[in-house]
Amino acid sequence: MGLVNVLFGRPLASIEDLGERITPAQGIPTFGLDALSSAAYGPEAALTVLLPLGLAGVRYIAPLTAAIIVLLTIVYFSYRQTIAAYPTGGGSYTVAKENLGHRAGLLAAAALMIDYLLNVAVGISAGIGALVSAVPSLQKHTLALCLVVLAILTIVNLRGVREAGSAFLAPTYLFVGTLGMVIVIGLYQVIATGGHPRAAVEPPHLPAATGAVGLWLLLRAFASGCTALTGVEAVSNGVQAFREPVVPAARKTLTTIVAILIGLLAGIAALVHYYGITATDPGQPGYQSVLAMVTAAVAGKGIFYDFTMFSVLLVLCLSANTSFADFPRLCRAVALDDYLPHGLAVRGRRLVYTEGILGLAIFAAALLIMFGGVTDRLIPLFAVGAFLAFTLSQAGMVAHWRRAANGAEAIHSMLINGLGAVATGITVVVVVAAKFMEGAWVVVLLLPAALMLMVWVRRHYQQVTQELQAKDIGMAPRHPPIVIVPMERWNAATQKALRFAMTLSPDVQAVHVTCEGDDSILGEWRSVVEEPAREAGVSVPKLVSLGSPYRLVLKPVVEHVLKVEKENRHRMVAVVVPTMVERHWYHYLLHNQRAAVLTALLLLRGERRINIVNVPWYLRA
Amino acid sequence: MGLVNVLFGRPLASIEDLGERITPAQGIPTFGLDALSSAAYGPEAALTVLLPLGLAGVRYIAPLTAAIIVLLTIVYFSYRQTIAAYPTGGGSYTVAKENLGHRAGLLAAAALMIDYLLNVAVGISAGIGALVSAVPSLQKHTLALCLVVLAILTIVNLRGVREAGSAFLAPTYLFVGTLGMVIVIGLYQVIATGGHPRAAVEPPHLPAATGAVGLWLLLRAFASGCTALTGVEAVSNGVQAFREPVVPAARKTLTTIVAILIGLLAGIAALVHYYGITATDPGQPGYQSVLAMVTAAVAGKGIFYDFTMFSVLLVLCLSANTSFADFPRLCRAVALDDYLPHGLAVRGRRLVYTEGILGLAIFAAALLIMFGGVTDRLIPLFAVGAFLAFTLSQAGMVAHWRRAANGAEAIHSMLINGLGAVATGITVVVVVAAKFMEGAWVVVLLLPAALMLMVWVRRHYQQVTQELQAKDIGMAPRHPPIVIVPMERWNAATQKALRFAMTLSPDVQAVHVTCEGDDSILGEWRSVVEEPAREAGVSVPKLVSLGSPYRLVLKPVVEHVLKVEKENRHRMVAVVVPTMVERHWYHYLLHNQRAAVLTALLLLRGERRINIVNVPWYLRA
Repeated sequence: MGLVNVLFGRPLASIEDLGERITPAQGIPTFGLDALSSAAYGPEAALTVLLPLGLAGVRYIAPLTAAIIVLLTIVYFSYRQTIAAYPTGGGSYTVAKENLGHRAGLLAAAALMIDYLLNVAVGISAGIGALVSAVPSLQKHTLALCLVVLAILTIVNLRGVREAGSAFLAPTYLFVGTLGMVIVIGLYQVIATGGHPRAAVEPPHLPAATGAVGLWLLLRAFASGCTALTGVEAVSNGVQAFREPVVPAARKTLTTIVAILIGLLAGIAALVHYYGITATDPGQPGYQSVLAMVTAAVAGKGIFYDFTMFSVLLVLCLSANTSFADFPRLCRAVALDDYLPHGLAVRGRRLVYTEGILGLAIFAAALLIMFGGVTDRLIPLFAVGAFLAFTLSQAGMVAHWRRAANGAEAIHSMLINGLGAVATGITVVVVVAAKFMEGAWVVVLLLPAALMLMVWVRRHYQQVTQELQAKDIGMAPRHPPIVIVPMERWNAATQKALRFAMTLSPDVQAVHVTCEGDDSILGEWRSVVEEPAREAGVSVPKLVSLGSPYRLVLKPVVEHVLKVEKENRHRMVAVVVPTMVERHWYHYLLHNQRAAVLTALLLLRGERRINIVNVPWYLRA
Repeated sequence: MGLVNVLFGRPLASIEDLGERITPAQGIPTFGLDALSSAAYGPEAALTVLLPLGLAGVRYIAPLTAAIIVLLTIVYFSYRQTIAAYPTGGGSYTVAKENLGHRAGLLAAAALMIDYLLNVAVGISAGIGALVSAVPSLQKHTLALCLVVLAILTIVNLRGVREAGSAFLAPTYLFVGTLGMVIVIGLYQVIATGGHPRAAVEPPHLPAATGAVGLWLLLRAFASGCTALTGVEAVSNGVQAFREPVVPAARKTLTTIVAILIGLLAGIAALVHYYGITATDPGQPGYQSVLAMVTAAVAGKGIFYDFTMFSVLLVLCLSANTSFADFPRLCRAVALDDYLPHGLAVRGRRLVYTEGILGLAIFAAALLIMFGGVTDRLIPLFAVGAFLAFTLSQAGMVAHWRRAANGAEAIHSMLINGLGAVATGITVVVVVAAKFMEGAWVVVLLLPAALMLMVWVRRHYQQVTQELQAKDIGMAPRHPPIVIVPMERWNAATQKALRFAMTLSPDVQAVHVTCEGDDSILGEWRSVVEEPAREAGVSVPKLVSLGSPYRLVLKPVVEHVLKVEKENRHRMVAVVVPTMVERHWYHYLLHNQRAAVLTALLLLRGERRINIVNVPWYLRA
């Protein structure tokens, strides 16, 4: 366990749970990395759609960002209320399930799971993408680097939620700090120059317009910019991770995250506007990210530029951490309702839901490997899940207030959540419509598949529970079982097995397969078993000899056992298998694995009255 | 079993053995492909060493080939005698072991195993090498093609020895036929032109001499040419594969193989001499094999040339088949003496030694993959093993006749085998010396390693046999065991397990792990077990409740079982594990595998008195 303890930390007892709870300061990196990192790609995504408008496109970034900030504010107030109403963890799944029914809950859960999974793959590959475009010699290691980051995130999260929060504190504040400085310095220059700042490094010339502005283009730009909102729901899912009292702590964390995000979005939009910066085509040579151009324009390409870019790529990589914090909690909630394997609800040695973390890591690794570490094509799939979950969650809150409807406060709350539901609902429609052909259809197909799978899992568990119903021990008359001992030759291992068999029942039969004419055991049997047993006055075991024309040793035994069971309708059968236990793995090559194969065969082909007894024989080390 | 039957044929009963025996005509492809195919590379190997001599080198090919043929003849007569003396299969291993002791036998076995393994890899990759040099577009598939050929050989051999013989009949006779025609036509032209034939396609100009002739060079050429002898021992290993009477059939096969081989070697040497052909450097562009140049010189580069070259590459690929026929038989003989895993001595469904065939295929595949399908560098390792085995086998025969020494016949036989031993012994020394730096040192290192491994295996088996010695059933007073039933919750599966446990012993305890405060089973226990049992008047099982601060379910159970065993020095312990049997693989994801893990843990950590009882519960399909 040495290495395990070093990697994952010592096991935590259940009563240590409270010590693992986090403060708001740790909550920001734990639950906020996804939301904050979207400041790095939300504005860029909108500007890329506006590219065909040339210089005119830049003019629309301010109103678009304003719209996105309004939507963000609505969503913020909605989730503030959700946190208060569901202090035990009000993820979209719980809220939708309790207020709109199980189907709506499952739809929200499936949408969020897809969103979280995509977030891991896209976040890591965006960060590594930024790294390899800065250091081209690393290009050929793209996939390996992605997997290393994934492995680090997995290990840190397996160490427990508190450690993950602490580990990612520094990069988060570095990102917010450097980007904040860029914005403050830039805005100061804008004001000092009366709205006409001179860029330290000139951004690329704006391309000529190739299209006209239209409602559809603006809607698509808005839909793309909305990726900036993904991750805002994370805090409401993980309320129980905070120190008591949980509600104020969670609310404080959410407020801080959203305030910072709004500041970053507004600041970037203003600088883009005043410095006249637009996106460059990511497919073309000379591509620079919007953040890179903004930073260069404000601060030049010195050490501060490098530092800022490094913090951006670090935060992009780590934005996957939000998924690691929330995905396992979501899976746990769904598993507790029998819709996912129960193992997802078990807390591991560090009080986190180990199987959920591993499941997320495996799926994300598969996605990364499938796309070779470059997941650009997955980005259009991204916002659909998040906004669908938003909508269902807000709609659920409306139903919640309606039932609780007493007085003006409830109506006020209902209005806020209703506004949120309508706004995010419209956004879902816009996002799906705008990005359907680019890949959103994959999500539209995946969702019902995930729903069906979860319903199937639940049906299976219900069926098993029904099958397993038992009243009491039910004392019908019971005989000792018929005990069968398969025996290749007479030795200490079979002797031990036979002796043990004789303690279980007076009806013992040894079964021997005569293979290629070797029946030396028959003569031995009389002298080593029959006579001593008769002398001791105990009931004498029977020897059954089976032929095997095809040299198979196990098949005749299995068939004999099945026959004995069939002929004795009211008796249990116990097959005593002498099992050689190897102390070293390489001993496996030297001994046949017939005991293991026989056990498996009997379990698979057996009926309800056949039981298997393994009598181990230990080889000396 | 449908696909298995199509691929490998229906299972064969043991009594069908005689029907699987082969005729001499089938014996030639089965045991002779290795020997015959060496006509394709033996002369070439010798000529390549002579390259520095230029034109003068060609003059030495006749005496060198004569020397090789003399050696071959000596070896032939030796093995003729071996077949008669060991009609049950007189491989080098058996002969050396019975006459020179176990160590000598193991040395011969290890040498032959290495030789057979190399033969598979080198044969296949030589054939595919010829193919890709003829069809360069296949170059990039070299390794895949090698593995496909290996897979075909493996499958055909798993179908049984008779089928392998039949399948490779046609290519063998095609090879002998076409090459024989080349030789006959060529010799006719030599005679018709009075020793000065005109080549249909001029061979490349002979290079100028760059070195002088010397004894060392000639010895090296001889050592290289001796690769033509590898494979001659194969028949003597597999005498029992022939139809009764086995000795004449095996002798006839050996005679035919050696006669054809001598004819091919002599013919090729003569044509090389009269047409003035020497090897071209295999590393250089414009490389052609000696057989290609001879065929082109005699018959031109028409359709017959293509046909002959195709048969050569086919036979090179298939020469690996001899290894497949002999390696498993050799392993079986060694395994029967406990020096290799016993599984190698078990005949599979088609009466061949399945594990030996698979083992050879796996090792050969590993070699091919390691060298990317190009195994030129393995060729120098080749002849060492074969000649070492020859020498040990001949020396063993000398000892054999000496002990049986009665009359002139035995002395005569002893002389023949003695001559063989001396000749092949000298050859081993020459081959090792000539090729030591090129790679023969690998074999020199591998041999003692293989010997040590085999001795270790035998020691392990002996130790196990000793540990397993048992006299008789030994009727000490016996109590029923203490039965422990781990129980997560009360349901039909645990009910069944507990009921079964109660038929085994009156001492039954159910063990429950209380995890994260859930102890609902305690109240249930009284009503569903204790009271009904008391009413029925049977002994009441005890409920043991174990705490688990770290949420581990299995560890407390294992520790409790170990404690119970320690506290009851004279009782056996049976742990009854309720086991859920899944009918579908995907159900594994939905249920925890605690039963399997608990079984494994108890077997590994348990002591001699702990036994495990699996009580299966079958989920409905």
